[in-house]
Amino acid sequence: MSRIAYVNGRYADQRLAEVNIEDRGYQFGDGVYEVVHLYGGHLIDEGRHLGRLERSCDAIRIARPMPRAALRLVLLEVARRNRLREGQIYIQVTRGVARRDHAFPSKPVPPGVVVTTKRIPPYPTDIEAWTGSAITYPDERWARVDIKTINLLPNCLARQAAREAGAIEAVLYDPATGLVREGAATSFWIVTADGTLVTRPLDQHILPGCTRDVLLAEMRAAGIAFEERDYSLDELRGAREAFLSSVTSFVKPMVKLDGRPVGDGRVGPVARRLFDLFARHVKGNA
Amino acid sequence: MSRIAYVNGRYADQRLAEVNIEDRGYQFGDGVYEVVHLYGGHLIDEGRHLGRLERSCDAIRIARPMPRAALRLVLLEVARRNRLREGQIYIQVTRGVARRDHAFPSKPVPPGVVVTTKRIPPYPTDIEAWTGSAITYPDERWARVDIKTINLLPNCLARQAAREAGAIEAVLYDPATGLVREGAATSFWIVTADGTLVTRPLDQHILPGCTRDVLLAEMRAAGIAFEERDYSLDELRGAREAFLSSVTSFVKPMVKLDGRPVGDGRVGPVARRLFDLFARHVKGNA
Repeated sequence: MSRIAYVNGRYADQRLAEVNIEDRGYQFGDGVYEVVHLYGGHLIDEGRHLGRLERSCDAIRIARPMPRAALRLVLLEVARRNRLREGQIYIQVTRGVARRDHAFPSKPVPPGVVVTTKRIPPYPTDIEAWTGSAITYPDERWARVDIKTINLLPNCLARQAAREAGAIEAVLYDPATGLVREGAATSFWIVTADGTLVTRPLDQHILPGCTRDVLLAEMRAAGIAFEERDYSLDELRGAREAFLSSVTSFVKPMVKLDGRPVGDGRVGPVARRLFDLFARHVKGNA
Repeated sequence: MSRIAYVNGRYADQRLAEVNIEDRGYQFGDGVYEVVHLYGGHLIDEGRHLGRLERSCDAIRIARPMPRAALRLVLLEVARRNRLREGQIYIQVTRGVARRDHAFPSKPVPPGVVVTTKRIPPYPTDIEAWTGSAITYPDERWARVDIKTINLLPNCLARQAAREAGAIEAVLYDPATGLVREGAATSFWIVTADGTLVTRPLDQHILPGCTRDVLLAEMRAAGIAFEERDYSLDELRGAREAFLSSVTSFVKPMVKLDGRPVGDGRVGPVARRLFDLFARHVKGNA
């Protein structure tokens, strides 16, 4: 079955779907995006994702393309047309089509909207089979990665470096300070040598992860202690556990870092607990 | 007459020309570009621009789409089909179409190539009518702006801020040090209070401008003294002259900075001399 995409008001065969060459997304990366997890036919954490998409649009002054309720219906319609009940829904909004000029179009144009889907394997139940390796990599991104834009080339280069090292994620650090930021497309967590669960606080140098936000809320509700603070590459290298979180990886233990085992090289109890907490969250919302 | 663009091997009406929604240029800004000045039907500084395009491709490991001689013929054919003898030719090369994944396509795909044209007014002869205003703006770009990529959102935001301030360019400075880098899409030059012509040396924080390079070569040949060194916002604010250079602005005096006159607020002798030198270079190469 061919996949169906939503492209600027129409549903089209995803392989053939096209946008204008003067779409500012194509010429400047002038756009924002979200990836939403569809589980049991439901948009998981829909409010967080659609809210963040609106904030991303607002942050770089792209007009919101449609009311949230209408966009929600588009997402569900794309899922329906793809007969998809479990997968990922990708939404991209760009500043629209205009003659090439760095400044915004002086006469406003409608934003571009593309929605695509991806089928994924069933939700992971065995955390032992849901692990991976990471590398450390200098953060070369721009100063406002708290906005979820499609200016993603540095992320792509970092992910490619990870892949070539046999890893699945690059943990980005500030080359000036050696402090860890986040994964190239994930939030990052450690359990320190003394057993403290730590993730970096939000600011303009990391994305406010929706999965990260859910985990923090679930941890608060469950009385799990954690610290939101900076941590260094050294602290990461000495960690008992390291794991990442994202809408596509859920909670995923990193059992190797730069080719060396993290802690004892096995899935740790904190990652296991958060993996279970998040699974309950997803399944409880579906 | 409708404009004709070259898009992935075909010539098409530019308004209708499209690329696939999964072109990595559209989803990640994973591409590079050049703008070449066409004058009297000739590609000005063709070797510099096509050489830089190849270096940009190499730097982020996008396959060069075709030999330089073939690309040159495409550029001239696009110009011919648009009956263009004076204008700008825009070339964009992306990593091609692949299912969305940050890492490069594991099975290589052909790079995407788009070429468009823009008609421009006749080459400026009166420098008094070829001036503008600039603002200063913090550089929020990524760590490798020496590569001419289409991850241009921070440049767009800076240019938009300039436009809203009634200016045409934003002079980007390192917010950590207050040292000036370059314009959002131009090289930047000052003549200091004591009369020294200064531009910032090349490194990963500025683009190696082709027009900048031509000017340096012409200045050396003409025995015009200059310094390639860092300079601060303070030194910029005290400058006698400030001007920018680029393939679209040639040499363009900035007579106001952040709303205040630069020097005496008039075109200075150094900008005038370089404007003339560059005009001779263009006209001598056509």
